[in-house]
Amino acid sequence: MATTSTSNVACDIANIELADLGKKRIEWANQSMKVLQIIRKDFIKNQPLKGFRISACLHVTAETANLMITLRDGGAEAVLCASNPLSTQDDVAASLVRDYGIPVYAIKGEDNDTYYSHIMAALDHKPHITMDDGADLVTIALTKRKDALEHVIAGTEETTTGVIRLRAMAKDGMLKYPIIAVNDADTKHMFDNRYGTGQSTIDGIVRATNFLLAGAKFVVAGYGWCGRGLASRARGLGAEVIVTEIDPTKAIEAVMDGYRVMSMHEAAQLGDVFCTVTGNKSVLRKEHFELMKDGAIISNSGHFNVEIDIPALEKLSSSKRTTRTFVDEYSLKDGRKINLLGEGRLINLASAEGHPPSVMDMSFADQALSLDYLVKHHKTLEKSVFKVPEELDKRVAKLKLESMGVKIDKLTPEQEEYLAGWSEGT
Amino acid sequence: MATTSTSNVACDIANIELADLGKKRIEWANQSMKVLQIIRKDFIKNQPLKGFRISACLHVTAETANLMITLRDGGAEAVLCASNPLSTQDDVAASLVRDYGIPVYAIKGEDNDTYYSHIMAALDHKPHITMDDGADLVTIALTKRKDALEHVIAGTEETTTGVIRLRAMAKDGMLKYPIIAVNDADTKHMFDNRYGTGQSTIDGIVRATNFLLAGAKFVVAGYGWCGRGLASRARGLGAEVIVTEIDPTKAIEAVMDGYRVMSMHEAAQLGDVFCTVTGNKSVLRKEHFELMKDGAIISNSGHFNVEIDIPALEKLSSSKRTTRTFVDEYSLKDGRKINLLGEGRLINLASAEGHPPSVMDMSFADQALSLDYLVKHHKTLEKSVFKVPEELDKRVAKLKLESMGVKIDKLTPEQEEYLAGWSEGT
Amino acid sequence: MATTSTSNVACDIANIELADLGKKRIEWANQSMKVLQIIRKDFIKNQPLKGFRISACLHVTAETANLMITLRDGGAEAVLCASNPLSTQDDVAASLVRDYGIPVYAIKGEDNDTYYSHIMAALDHKPHITMDDGADLVTIALTKRKDALEHVIAGTEETTTGVIRLRAMAKDGMLKYPIIAVNDADTKHMFDNRYGTGQSTIDGIVRATNFLLAGAKFVVAGYGWCGRGLASRARGLGAEVIVTEIDPTKAIEAVMDGYRVMSMHEAAQLGDVFCTVTGNKSVLRKEHFELMKDGAIISNSGHFNVEIDIPALEKLSSSKRTTRTFVDEYSLKDGRKINLLGEGRLINLASAEGHPPSVMDMSFADQALSLDYLVKHHKTLEKSVFKVPEELDKRVAKLKLESMGVKIDKLTPEQEEYLAGWSEGT
Amino acid sequence: MATTSTSNVACDIANIELADLGKKRIEWANQSMKVLQIIRKDFIKNQPLKGFRISACLHVTAETANLMITLRDGGAEAVLCASNPLSTQDDVAASLVRDYGIPVYAIKGEDNDTYYSHIMAALDHKPHITMDDGADLVTIALTKRKDALEHVIAGTEETTTGVIRLRAMAKDGMLKYPIIAVNDADTKHMFDNRYGTGQSTIDGIVRATNFLLAGAKFVVAGYGWCGRGLASRARGLGAEVIVTEIDPTKAIEAVMDGYRVMSMHEAAQLGDVFCTVTGNKSVLRKEHFELMKDGAIISNSGHFNVEIDIPALEKLSSSKRTTRTFVDEYSLKDGRKINLLGEGRLINLASAEGHPPSVMDMSFADQALSLDYLVKHHKTLEKSVFKVPEELDKRVAKLKLESMGVKIDKLTPEQEEYLAGWSEGT
Repeated sequence: MATTSTSNVACDIANIELADLGKKRIEWANQSMKVLQIIRKDFIKNQPLKGFRISACLHVTAETANLMITLRDGGAEAVLCASNPLSTQDDVAASLVRDYGIPVYAIKGEDNDTYYSHIMAALDHKPHITMDDGADLVTIALTKRKDALEHVIAGTEETTTGVIRLRAMAKDGMLKYPIIAVNDADTKHMFDNRYGTGQSTIDGIVRATNFLLAGAKFVVAGYGWCGRGLASRARGLGAEVIVTEIDPTKAIEAVMDGYRVMSMHEAAQLGDVFCTVTGNKSVLRKEHFELMKDGAIISNSGHFNVEIDIPALEKLSSSKRTTRTFVDEYSLKDGRKINLLGEGRLINLASAEGHPPSVMDMSFADQALSLDYLVKHHKTLEKSVFKVPEELDKRVAKLKLESMGVKIDKLTPEQEEYLAGWSEGT
Repeated sequence: MATTSTSNVACDIANIELADLGKKRIEWANQSMKVLQIIRKDFIKNQPLKGFRISACLHVTAETANLMITLRDGGAEAVLCASNPLSTQDDVAASLVRDYGIPVYAIKGEDNDTYYSHIMAALDHKPHITMDDGADLVTIALTKRKDALEHVIAGTEETTTGVIRLRAMAKDGMLKYPIIAVNDADTKHMFDNRYGTGQSTIDGIVRATNFLLAGAKFVVAGYGWCGRGLASRARGLGAEVIVTEIDPTKAIEAVMDGYRVMSMHEAAQLGDVFCTVTGNKSVLRKEHFELMKDGAIISNSGHFNVEIDIPALEKLSSSKRTTRTFVDEYSLKDGRKINLLGEGRLINLASAEGHPPSVMDMSFADQALSLDYLVKHHKTLEKSVFKVPEELDKRVAKLKLESMGVKIDKLTPEQEEYLAGWSEGT
Repeated sequence: MATTSTSNVACDIANIELADLGKKRIEWANQSMKVLQIIRKDFIKNQPLKGFRISACLHVTAETANLMITLRDGGAEAVLCASNPLSTQDDVAASLVRDYGIPVYAIKGEDNDTYYSHIMAALDHKPHITMDDGADLVTIALTKRKDALEHVIAGTEETTTGVIRLRAMAKDGMLKYPIIAVNDADTKHMFDNRYGTGQSTIDGIVRATNFLLAGAKFVVAGYGWCGRGLASRARGLGAEVIVTEIDPTKAIEAVMDGYRVMSMHEAAQLGDVFCTVTGNKSVLRKEHFELMKDGAIISNSGHFNVEIDIPALEKLSSSKRTTRTFVDEYSLKDGRKINLLGEGRLINLASAEGHPPSVMDMSFADQALSLDYLVKHHKTLEKSVFKVPEELDKRVAKLKLESMGVKIDKLTPEQEEYLAGWSEGT
Repeated sequence: MATTSTSNVACDIANIELADLGKKRIEWANQSMKVLQIIRKDFIKNQPLKGFRISACLHVTAETANLMITLRDGGAEAVLCASNPLSTQDDVAASLVRDYGIPVYAIKGEDNDTYYSHIMAALDHKPHITMDDGADLVTIALTKRKDALEHVIAGTEETTTGVIRLRAMAKDGMLKYPIIAVNDADTKHMFDNRYGTGQSTIDGIVRATNFLLAGAKFVVAGYGWCGRGLASRARGLGAEVIVTEIDPTKAIEAVMDGYRVMSMHEAAQLGDVFCTVTGNKSVLRKEHFELMKDGAIISNSGHFNVEIDIPALEKLSSSKRTTRTFVDEYSLKDGRKINLLGEGRLINLASAEGHPPSVMDMSFADQALSLDYLVKHHKTLEKSVFKVPEELDKRVAKLKLESMGVKIDKLTPEQEEYLAGWSEGT
């Protein structure tokens, strides 16, 4: 890949001219990221990341931009590549390069080869720390680019999918340095995955289709944190929500939350709109496409675009055309049409802007504080996957509440004693 | 105004080149407008509008396009102008002209002079029937363009705001022909105003801002059908909803629906996002701007852009800049910033695509059937404002249910007798 | 019927000893009936009902007691009989007699003969005004007891069912005096029928069964105001709600509110709990019982106990036993069991306490103000069914808001002018 | 305490005559406890508890009765005492003794001395296994009745409060045998604590007060599983819900769920109805009573009656009277009145019937399977607090789904492989 350079900052981006728009969007997002603002002030003062090179493979959005700027302001030499070919906001990428001097390798709609070449460019940075959203960068480093591991002391991972992969690696003894599963922080997955995915996925689907959800049958595949959020928002917009699951406990939870729960075999015949958020592959596949109603809309908001088996859909189809931006209409050989959104990639980033800044504020505050923690403690940590330390997690929660002007109660001394004891009964 | 002609079809539109995209969007919308499809088939066969000239002043959207095509297919000579300067979808306008041969006068973002010149052009068509969305066309016809009244036999009005104006006109003895208040059909205002406005307003606000609604304080001004829909959707996305009202009955209804209800004076100090849906003017005004939090987002989804007193906001401000498409940031002299969306025009059309086709299907089915009815019965109708005949209203409801595959019960003979009688008691 | 007399007050009640408990419940209800408190103060001062005899046939509850006391305090000579054999609160009846000197003819669980003898006793009072909840009293007066009509100048009717009957009577030319349909006041049917019926019906079903609604399939027959309220509350408790309707407009409304809508034929096979709120008869009948699941729970919250065809259920059954208070288990010949609640009578009064006082406050404020109005205007009114005058309706709404401490906006002069005009457009 | 004997079964209960009613209620509950039915059949066949003496200290309800019968049928010699003085259903106690031969020591409304004497009686049984709901029995055994520990091999604990106490004991090295925290099973706390507490607490409050929740300000203290369920149900009935918390993460979760979150200091001034579900003490105390509105209703649904500081309320009051069953009206010296429900004891058991059987089905299935597990594995377990083994937890979930007729998906071999791997990326 030819690494072009703009104003002496290495990069491979779509168009530096878009920087003006990108800068405004970065600033707009910053207004809702008040916890990160506080951390940034602290980082400017204390320079905790001074001298550390960071290679980040994250969705290149306005929110991520604010994280990168915070790391830079904390003393880090940070570079950024995309964690998904479709999720890059080209204007943001341009502004990061032009206005903030941060190298970026990401172009919206890049092909797979370019995608991986961008990861390679990020690894060329010889990072001390890796940051991942889906574990693609660490996977490349551990397999094809072991040379890049030389300086690495630690890493972070942002998403459920990535954490699952890392745990599998750790189990296989493949992991070469400690990684904090930022995803597993309460202030991350309970919020970002639920309220962020919930709103932004609906946003993505509605932008792509302008489809009325009120009265529609909306099938949510997966009732993890993302699925719970999505189901709740779809119902909030008036849809009749159907949930599919493989885990019996989550399935009953969905039942008791008042949703219809059934197998995908059954749901496939009923749904107007489908969205997968499972972290698994081929959740919608040939056997389901064969049952769907004419005009069904299918989409994915899980990390990878494997949740819908697109090759199988193509095989069933006689032709395909783009009817709206992000809507591909597949004409099946039996005459039915199925509308695939955003090429099966996470629809909230493909056709909308990803999670709103206010919720990414918490996730990225967890990221920033985790990096601070790793720099200080990496030597004592095993080559394994760790949770965000509870005190950091709670600190993010407290800062967020304060930024919202919400006051909560404190334990009285009497209450603290009561909770610590066991002798006081009926 | 220079009426340009494209392929021999009179028009004043932004860019005929956009027609390809517009055509796809018209077809996409058509897929969800199954009641109108049925009526269209009937119109093609029976030609009820044969020989009638229709001047329609409606939002130029993909849904309206399908209505216009239905009227054309029913034999009408129909022309279309915009009912709002910001709501035109330029690609749809282009396709109507190029692909369907329907004259259109509408350009997204046109200034007020152009807006009115477009209405004039529509009146030059010498209509037999007027169609309005906000009563601008009929108002011009009744005041400045009385010549245009010569052939008019009847009209329709789409929206609450327009019906209020028409009733005021009728009261003043100004109305010169019968008009059906399509807005007042149950299958219109209970659906379009509630589910349509609800979803599309949220869509417009989220597209404009990417703001997280979960946990935000969302102020809905007005608890009519639109307000009820909007409040319900805002809550459905996790917002804490605050309602303001001037009508005590609607106010208690909002209270019992679990919303906070208060004066705008109080709400102005709390809200993160505001949206007006009142049909009234200056609902947000100087006294409220003075109380708002730094960063407050204000928007309107009522018909006219008078619900927010923008001149007053400008007077309070030292500067103004556009931070995102459809977001104008006003810097107040006291240092606070207020973000105005879509220049105060109906945000669901300004930054989103207006009501989804599935709900416009019912409203426009009411329009089409009302035109059919007016053509047949206009001679026996007074110069007043009428409701959509109940049998048409119910017919639309039945067709919609059928198109959704929903079956409902029928009265048994025994039940019919019971409901008609009064002797059977405890 | 032997009219017994207690402390010189004519009555036929279960047990005067229960008066202590009844008095407390009347006082408890009074605390939440703040609008009625205000009206009562005014009535005490102005004595608008001085010299008028009132025969009221209403549910004998703590809320009704407060209305009767208000009428008495306004100068009326009022007597009360039950409007349903199962809805009487015997303790309240006792206290009305003993503590407030108001004659009452009502015993919870009375048989049909006693029920009608109580109505006769109320008519023996030679009323000037009749008050009905279901139109049983007026029906008897117009048929079997025409003598009782001698002094009658006007009446009121509380409920949808009664209004339907009265309109049928008026159509048949049977009505002999003007009646205000209190039910049709906005402050009545939009609140009492929705929020009152919603909560109290759920309360009745849960008290009778202790059945978990979360995850249960709850079938609501009828999507009028009562049905909307009930469906909303059932969903609010986690049920998957299924709605049946005969009206297509209401049916689509239910669809767009996110409920499943289907024929009762289909719903009968799915439901765990059924509740009818239609105002019609035989809504659940033989053909449905035959399809229900083993253990299905069926109930009614409509006015009369004809909504469930109990004779048909009995015919299908080989035996019947009471398994809990208000639960009759029917063993069908095919082995299935169906549980009928409260003998098919309105379950919110049979096994719970009827509408909470806070919502009856509005309905009964409408009643009291309507009586005041009728006494003043009856001479100018035709023998027909009237709405509550709008100014009374709004007055009740305003008083209710004030009692809740809720402040709302007032129109500015500029806004009033705007709403009255029509010339201000885009 | 004098242990009376009925039909040769040791007991201390209110009234054996109530057994008929109790038997029906036990059978009614059994109909909704289908998982326990399956386990019972297995227990009857395999007799896993043959020869084990069990002393259970649980709420004596119809659902618990079905658990006790299951244990008996599995071969155990089980006795039962109450885990709360107000929660006993006397009719159920009578039937357990008379119809099922199970010794019961429990009388609804018993004083504290009797309460503890009943625990003593249960310990006199010389148990091999203890079952607790709040850890009162194990606490007595570990302190005042160490003799009773002689045969104990293991125990279970049902509730959050008890688990907190047991963990404190374990930390202090006090625990003498392994205990399974049944509460911590997913199929327990995610369901029973949320959907069970949610519905039954609302049920208890409404039965006690007949108060309209629509439009009321409902304050939920604590946003754990119980609080989440309660808040959701209160909103579902139309209340404006206010949440108080001490934990910042839970507090933001409540904010993002759309609730108002504030300190109790602030909430005390706004609330119409309060309910504590914290597991802590003095959550409502003097400083809050001093701020409450006249007529405020306060209640608790946490395990112990210490969440409301009743002595402080009494000190502030000049008098107290019972205005309805389970409603004590405290007249404060400043003239305000505060209504305390159910003496501050868990209101869902005091004035309603506790969790519905369908949800207890899962909790008690966990109990039964845990006992089976403990009997088989107690020798290898440390003297600590354990989770329910995951395979048991999932088994309960699967059985529950099956009993509801809900089908879910299974992983395909391809999916299993995908989830186990890490190499497949973007």
